[in-house]
Amino acid sequence: MSLLGAIRDYRDLRAFSPEEASALCGELRERIIDVVLDRGGHLASSLGAVELIVGLLRLFDPAEDRIIFDVGHQAYAYKILTGRDDVFNTLRTWGGISGFPKHRESPFDHFDVGHSSTSLSAGLGYAKARDIRGESHEVVAFIGDGALLNGLALEALNNVKSADTKLIIILNDNEWSINRKVGGLAECLARMRSHSSYRRLKAFIKEHCRNLPKGEGIEAFLGRVKDHVKAVLQPSNFFEELDISYWGPFDGHDLEDIETVLALARRYDRPVLIHFLTEKGRGYRPAEENPTKFHGISCRPDPSLPKEPPLPSWSSAVCDVLRERAAADPRVVALTAAMMEGSKLNAFARDFPDRFFDVGIAEGHLLTFAAGLAAGGLRPVATIYATFLQRAMDQLVEDIAMQGHPVIVAVDRAGLVGEDGETHHGLLDVCWGRAVPGLAMMAPRDVIDLQAMFDYAFTLAGPSMIRYPRGCAPLVVGPEIRPDIASGRAQCLVEGEETLLIGYGSTIPLLLEAQQRCLFLGLPSPSVVDLRFLKPLDWTSLDDWISTHRRVLIVEEGYAAGSIGEALGAHIATQGLSIDFKVIAVADAYIPQGTQEEQWKSCGFSVETLLSQIRPCHVSTAP
Amino acid sequence: MSLLGAIRDYRDLRAFSPEEASALCGELRERIIDVVLDRGGHLASSLGAVELIVGLLRLFDPAEDRIIFDVGHQAYAYKILTGRDDVFNTLRTWGGISGFPKHRESPFDHFDVGHSSTSLSAGLGYAKARDIRGESHEVVAFIGDGALLNGLALEALNNVKSADTKLIIILNDNEWSINRKVGGLAECLARMRSHSSYRRLKAFIKEHCRNLPKGEGIEAFLGRVKDHVKAVLQPSNFFEELDISYWGPFDGHDLEDIETVLALARRYDRPVLIHFLTEKGRGYRPAEENPTKFHGISCRPDPSLPKEPPLPSWSSAVCDVLRERAAADPRVVALTAAMMEGSKLNAFARDFPDRFFDVGIAEGHLLTFAAGLAAGGLRPVATIYATFLQRAMDQLVEDIAMQGHPVIVAVDRAGLVGEDGETHHGLLDVCWGRAVPGLAMMAPRDVIDLQAMFDYAFTLAGPSMIRYPRGCAPLVVGPEIRPDIASGRAQCLVEGEETLLIGYGSTIPLLLEAQQRCLFLGLPSPSVVDLRFLKPLDWTSLDDWISTHRRVLIVEEGYAAGSIGEALGAHIATQGLSIDFKVIAVADAYIPQGTQEEQWKSCGFSVETLLSQIRPCHVSTAP
Repeated sequence: MSLLGAIRDYRDLRAFSPEEASALCGELRERIIDVVLDRGGHLASSLGAVELIVGLLRLFDPAEDRIIFDVGHQAYAYKILTGRDDVFNTLRTWGGISGFPKHRESPFDHFDVGHSSTSLSAGLGYAKARDIRGESHEVVAFIGDGALLNGLALEALNNVKSADTKLIIILNDNEWSINRKVGGLAECLARMRSHSSYRRLKAFIKEHCRNLPKGEGIEAFLGRVKDHVKAVLQPSNFFEELDISYWGPFDGHDLEDIETVLALARRYDRPVLIHFLTEKGRGYRPAEENPTKFHGISCRPDPSLPKEPPLPSWSSAVCDVLRERAAADPRVVALTAAMMEGSKLNAFARDFPDRFFDVGIAEGHLLTFAAGLAAGGLRPVATIYATFLQRAMDQLVEDIAMQGHPVIVAVDRAGLVGEDGETHHGLLDVCWGRAVPGLAMMAPRDVIDLQAMFDYAFTLAGPSMIRYPRGCAPLVVGPEIRPDIASGRAQCLVEGEETLLIGYGSTIPLLLEAQQRCLFLGLPSPSVVDLRFLKPLDWTSLDDWISTHRRVLIVEEGYAAGSIGEALGAHIATQGLSIDFKVIAVADAYIPQGTQEEQWKSCGFSVETLLSQIRPCHVSTAP
Repeated sequence: MSLLGAIRDYRDLRAFSPEEASALCGELRERIIDVVLDRGGHLASSLGAVELIVGLLRLFDPAEDRIIFDVGHQAYAYKILTGRDDVFNTLRTWGGISGFPKHRESPFDHFDVGHSSTSLSAGLGYAKARDIRGESHEVVAFIGDGALLNGLALEALNNVKSADTKLIIILNDNEWSINRKVGGLAECLARMRSHSSYRRLKAFIKEHCRNLPKGEGIEAFLGRVKDHVKAVLQPSNFFEELDISYWGPFDGHDLEDIETVLALARRYDRPVLIHFLTEKGRGYRPAEENPTKFHGISCRPDPSLPKEPPLPSWSSAVCDVLRERAAADPRVVALTAAMMEGSKLNAFARDFPDRFFDVGIAEGHLLTFAAGLAAGGLRPVATIYATFLQRAMDQLVEDIAMQGHPVIVAVDRAGLVGEDGETHHGLLDVCWGRAVPGLAMMAPRDVIDLQAMFDYAFTLAGPSMIRYPRGCAPLVVGPEIRPDIASGRAQCLVEGEETLLIGYGSTIPLLLEAQQRCLFLGLPSPSVVDLRFLKPLDWTSLDDWISTHRRVLIVEEGYAAGSIGEALGAHIATQGLSIDFKVIAVADAYIPQGTQEEQWKSCGFSVETLLSQIRPCHVSTAP
């Protein structure tokens, strides 16, 4: 029987010999590789954190102590060891377990994550709550070296001192965020990594910990350590400048070292950051050699499905457009916040290295930096996932839109994103964006419109936002010939009768399919309108179209609250029109992980839903 | 004739002798004090930065060089010297000049500001744009010591190295943000301030700059400086860890020193941060002694108006509620992001020092820290201005609402804020907040409801948001007796006929006034409904009320796009009702500075506007 199979409870780990614990790490890696290659997921990060998690669970008790992950996709071993081994093969599936920590899934997941760099702030909150309530458990916050560069984590680091509480910070430094990370702090970590005196400190701690006299208190011992530190080290580093004790660097794959240092940290009474060096993808050769590729991988394709020539993703299509524009116009520059691979900007970065900026996981800086670039006379395109745009809304309003800087915000992964689940959907960008004065908002339904919209956006004197979903970009949807893009002009794709179907971007193919189904069923063909612009809206055309139909259905991949549908409904109400009107959009809830198809269905984005709205007036019998 | 009066152009400054330049600083202070005591504004910061600005304008040319302020309320002397002396007495008034840099006001204002900590990101953008365009002007970014602690500025600091460009950063360190600032970096700056070797460096630079041999290049000279620095200084500090050259600290009121160092910085070829120590309120004794009080002051009251006993502000009323609750429940804690004075939390901080947290200008951390406190079993109330909540929306969604943590977000200054103008209005919180699943949103119309809503929020297992405007909180508005607060229950304040007036929070007194005016004019009395809850909405009651009226008017102090009015309109349209419906809310534009009254009027929040909507059907003659 395997070691992993013998574990009924994470507390069993404590009885393991060092050799057994080490062998367990191997089994955990196999389990993770097996499931992730099948189901998809974040392989490289999770493989890198196996020893840290095993060490942590041998020394801390998550029923008492609070363990907080950052981003959370390194936590698979933790999930397996805290009672989720039997369901681990449901990872990231509809009805299965999430790819991220979730309190509703396990009481041992103390803080839900998904967006990076929250663990230090949440950890400080837990620690102060403990102090105020007079409790005594430990609080351990994980953070990766990439996540540490985000403003939220840096704000928290600055607040460690004033919080005046004990917090154990585990810096899991794999020298990568998703791509190799950027910036001065990264270099600073690199210097720490290579500083030989830290290695001497490590030897010192190990030696003295083992021989700690029974009578000597930990404080006196640490005082001695500190003196020694002062002697062998440079007097300060980034963390100690912020008054956070810094220990490290240590080998994050040496279980014995990990446990020695964690035991010391338990008994230490100050905030401490322990710097562990780990290897992303550890134990799986392809991932070790190409961690970026194995940062997040998709599930294995179903071999029973026919193989179609793959369409380019929306991200690739955007990269193509940007490269073409950049070749023609030296003012065009492209930006990403640590998502070069995800946003498929590699080719742009290769062709225009001096006009490509990866600012790291720093979404706020991304947009204000872009504003500065635009103010300085360039035409920046800031690519960002819709879910991460939530982090930079103030910068979008105050630094871009209010000042009218011609920044194009290319909003990737807008809509439902599938397996990453609720933390990663882009369902707020339409509502939040359209309340921002001065921002032009567009959504292409295919690659033709994508190109036309970027061309148009580059002609604007002010800011714009172009949103597109996760997945493949169809080359042509609906009529190939279309009117030129002009501010706020919608396009009627099908002139039908009775029912007016309105959508934009990702919902247009669904509307066209519903229209075809109506024809097939012998129902009158509905009209289909693509708004193309979400801001401003084409009220003149809409008024014309609405006046010739008795029913209006608008279908949007975003929350219903604050949707275009609400604006349209309010417009109809203001006109005093009595018409059969309905918005089909995402209801007021968080949509869990699953495939995009499952999520679409759960939100009512299906031909059946549309037909059920269209059909009633054509059916005289009861439904 | 005064020196100031003699200046026709900032270039004239260069001809001034050191003595004249120094005397000019005195005149600038007088001018600033005169206007700000009369008009209100940010006095203390502006007085502290006078010498820095004079020095800057003697060495840099804002027609070529880009000068970027942070927050911008220290820039009054800059406004006066760059062609706005004659209109400076219109500061912060309707139709006058803004209290912040505005490009539309002057080509010398290179980046608009209002929210803190943007200057480094914008400055890096300008600097990279210069490099890419092959230009050669300087880019100078100001930043205060308080603003430096915000995540956005820290992200930018981390990006200075990878941007690989020249940027001159002026750290204006007055040892305050608004209150004394908090955190490890603040202590770190304090250590730098007191480090004697930096003073030696200063002496060294001054001595060698004056004697710089004609033949010696600046690079060689700086090489020598650098060697000397290595010898006398500790090997690193916070900024040098990030690979940003650090020079300082220098006396920010010694014009000669300032000019010497700035001249050196012009000729330096790397990013450099120059640390100047300044005194907030310098030159105006009351402000020197109490910089917090004089951070921002209101305009002088009009002596012709009758003096009424002042009502407490909404902020004070909230503080009273929180103190009462905290006395009764040890789990209650209160938080602010550097707005203790503005949010009137002094009394709370005094009474419950261990349960009060000022995290500095760190809005993202504020909410994620609050989420951690709530997860740890406390009942945190995070107070934040609506305009700054824009900086923490992702944390509100991902760390609070999605996880269901019982954090109360107390949203101060919601609506139009008056003299601070467009950057500071709270017009997005309703739209942005109501799209967030799981968030309860309330708006009290008076102090009775404020108390009841907080009481109710503390009973919730999940998150809530309570919004209230800038200004005085009326004790009672409308009927004193009211139903208990229950999730999503609206209240009908006046049962009338024909017209249903709907509002919440700040617009309720206006609706009641309009109703009274109708009675006075002999028109039928409209009904008046206070929604109280913005999320969820009381659809059942609303349906009843709507069904008995022929006209519905909703009045909201927020943008129309994404408003409650749109939700209501869409609801009406979905029901197929034909009714006279109208939303009165803020149009799709930025509202400039002025009094709140002027802003209200410009947005159509007036009895006259309401009457013009109500009246038509009662008047048979042409309007």
